[in-house]
Amino acid sequence: MRKLQILIVVADGLGDRPVPQYGGATPLELAVKPNINSLLRNAVLGLWDPIAPGIRPGSDTAHLSLFGEDPLKKYPGRGPFEAIGAGAELKPGDIALRGNFATVDENMVILDRRAGRKVPENKEFVEYLNSNLGEVEGAEVRFYSATEHRLAVVIRGEGLSPEVTDTDPHEVGVKVPPSRPKVNTPEAEKTARIVTEITFRSHQLLKDHPLNKERVKRGLPPANIVLLRGAGQMVRYTPITERAGIKIEKAAAVSATAMIKGVCRLLGMEVYTPLGATGGVDTDVIAKARRTVELIKEGYDLVYLHFKGTDAASHDGNPDLKKSFIERVDEAIGYIVQNVDTGNLVMVFTGDHTTPVSVRDHTGDPVPVMIAAPNVFSDRAKNFSERDARLFGTLGRLRGNDLIRVVLDLANRVEKFGA
Amino acid sequence: MRKLQILIVVADGLGDRPVPQYGGATPLELAVKPNINSLLRNAVLGLWDPIAPGIRPGSDTAHLSLFGEDPLKKYPGRGPFEAIGAGAELKPGDIALRGNFATVDENMVILDRRAGRKVPENKEFVEYLNSNLGEVEGAEVRFYSATEHRLAVVIRGEGLSPEVTDTDPHEVGVKVPPSRPKVNTPEAEKTARIVTEITFRSHQLLKDHPLNKERVKRGLPPANIVLLRGAGQMVRYTPITERAGIKIEKAAAVSATAMIKGVCRLLGMEVYTPLGATGGVDTDVIAKARRTVELIKEGYDLVYLHFKGTDAASHDGNPDLKKSFIERVDEAIGYIVQNVDTGNLVMVFTGDHTTPVSVRDHTGDPVPVMIAAPNVFSDRAKNFSERDARLFGTLGRLRGNDLIRVVLDLANRVEKFGA
Repeated sequence: MRKLQILIVVADGLGDRPVPQYGGATPLELAVKPNINSLLRNAVLGLWDPIAPGIRPGSDTAHLSLFGEDPLKKYPGRGPFEAIGAGAELKPGDIALRGNFATVDENMVILDRRAGRKVPENKEFVEYLNSNLGEVEGAEVRFYSATEHRLAVVIRGEGLSPEVTDTDPHEVGVKVPPSRPKVNTPEAEKTARIVTEITFRSHQLLKDHPLNKERVKRGLPPANIVLLRGAGQMVRYTPITERAGIKIEKAAAVSATAMIKGVCRLLGMEVYTPLGATGGVDTDVIAKARRTVELIKEGYDLVYLHFKGTDAASHDGNPDLKKSFIERVDEAIGYIVQNVDTGNLVMVFTGDHTTPVSVRDHTGDPVPVMIAAPNVFSDRAKNFSERDARLFGTLGRLRGNDLIRVVLDLANRVEKFGA
Repeated sequence: MRKLQILIVVADGLGDRPVPQYGGATPLELAVKPNINSLLRNAVLGLWDPIAPGIRPGSDTAHLSLFGEDPLKKYPGRGPFEAIGAGAELKPGDIALRGNFATVDENMVILDRRAGRKVPENKEFVEYLNSNLGEVEGAEVRFYSATEHRLAVVIRGEGLSPEVTDTDPHEVGVKVPPSRPKVNTPEAEKTARIVTEITFRSHQLLKDHPLNKERVKRGLPPANIVLLRGAGQMVRYTPITERAGIKIEKAAAVSATAMIKGVCRLLGMEVYTPLGATGGVDTDVIAKARRTVELIKEGYDLVYLHFKGTDAASHDGNPDLKKSFIERVDEAIGYIVQNVDTGNLVMVFTGDHTTPVSVRDHTGDPVPVMIAAPNVFSDRAKNFSERDARLFGTLGRLRGNDLIRVVLDLANRVEKFGA
């Protein structure tokens, strides 16, 4: 059999739970999606647990699992992935920590761990820190701005260890503690000194910053220190193009979300963000579909197309917005199907996790998945939804790496295991 | 989303196989159970393999798995759990062995490994041994009476090891062997000496015991030695209230069965046995339901309710008794549902394993499970049974820790894994 191309389309946070104001239906169930539903004639449906039943995935762990890594066995903690989500490009060995802009008094006693939560000066502060605190003990230090009071710090250098304690004590009214090594190694001792130095120097740099003087004038707590926590050391993931027994030579992702782009790069994909793609509900879905079609036509073995809007609408608790965004994803899928040779394609449509609008956060429910391909047993489903996947799906309940393995197999891109 | 309370109801050995005298139906299928079936309107059904498909669970391993431990990775052998089932409270590090009252001649040659199986003097012998053999080499030794000729021995002290051979050679006509260390460590050598000493001193104490003289008079083999086997060292299990990423602060169990009570205590639950609860088919189901309702109203995050009667009836091979006991469990569930706020509850009803009346022992079949909660997709089942769970259940086939993870997730009591 010839090899088929693979297209995986993920609507982030796609799955949902019964929505009371929809009479127990879901946004996916009610969305008008003629293009997706017309694929059901040649598709098999099922449920997929991105990690395992009941485990609430992050975007990072879900995508690692989607593309064949096992985050339960290999995951450096949230620090490195928060940094990736903030735009960092990490190398194996880099130490990353999550940080907060916080407020301390003149004795370094913490008054507010989040400096009032609203820190619109975040980007300016981060630039200032990067200009003035670029190196400690020969290691390169870089700050990355995130939402509200949040940021990430990456330390790159020789002889570092993630085995160090936080300078964020997770309580107010106490002095900022130094970071301490958790193990007696020169690497942990050095890293603890660096983390301590970053924290204390951030205070020296920020306490007299003009923007903080303005904050104080306006009655706001100054963002006069960076507290750090959750040190993690980036590991090396095997690019999907280099994995033993798997025949993928060229893979590409289309996404506008920093975290997803970063994870896809780690896993060996080229990453594209077409003009008009925003990572939100206002994204240009057709621009992304057009780029996807081009990549398929250019002969990429695996193309990944990611839409973030469904997750954004879910975190907002807005089922109507989620539903209408799914309808736009359907338009994008319609565009793709009309412009590529589906007889040569294994096409997956699913979510990276469930984000129920009623919960406004990721949950551990399985996500509905459909695999449309010329060589599958099709189901009796008429409407791609959580319910139809449960009632009519014959793919069963897959977990973790099962999904990519099934897809690679249908595309004739895996070697036999055994004789 | 707010956190929900969790109620897990287990009818021990609930699952069954098609019963010929029922035309292939099962006791669960034929039981009249209006309360359980009315829960189906808001419930999802499925199958659960307590350990993994085809593995026959013990009550101990099944319950460890139900509450999130993995007995395939962490299990000290049957010895410690048999001791718990006999009423012992074990600490991590304790050595426990299973024992038989047996019959030896004056040369310590084994004549009967079970002293005729019927040893109604079991409790008296155990008390006598506890009064006269309380310590060996500085270690505390305690005997626990079990059914027929069975008992358990717990050794508590410093520097012990489970790596010792049995003093029960599993055959007759041979001399009782000393216990030998399996590894060359001072701990194993010491423990082997202690196990040998317990065995030989038990003979010294029992051979002239008046109750044994009476047995001989009545033509019965004297129970004149304790043969020991299966040394295991108790491990520490993490209480469910202390596990990383899981938000359970208070958990309680309602049970009258020593083994279940012991396991629940190990896992961090408070244990209650209301007056009238017997651990058998004659138990006061409403007394247990009432205690359960009180615990839910007192705000416990997780309440576990265990009924043993189904398993007892199954071991007796009595489908009618099993069916009628299930009907009484249904009454208990009816009482609970009428007296708590089910809108705030994730409620599970299942078994800890299957005990088919045709087998009279635990088997590795999956057990039917239902999860009734305000936020699940309900199924089209009308009668909670092994068959309906297979035909209509959309939960799929869960295994091991999957079940508790799914339940904790539905109750909004787990943290996200990842960023």
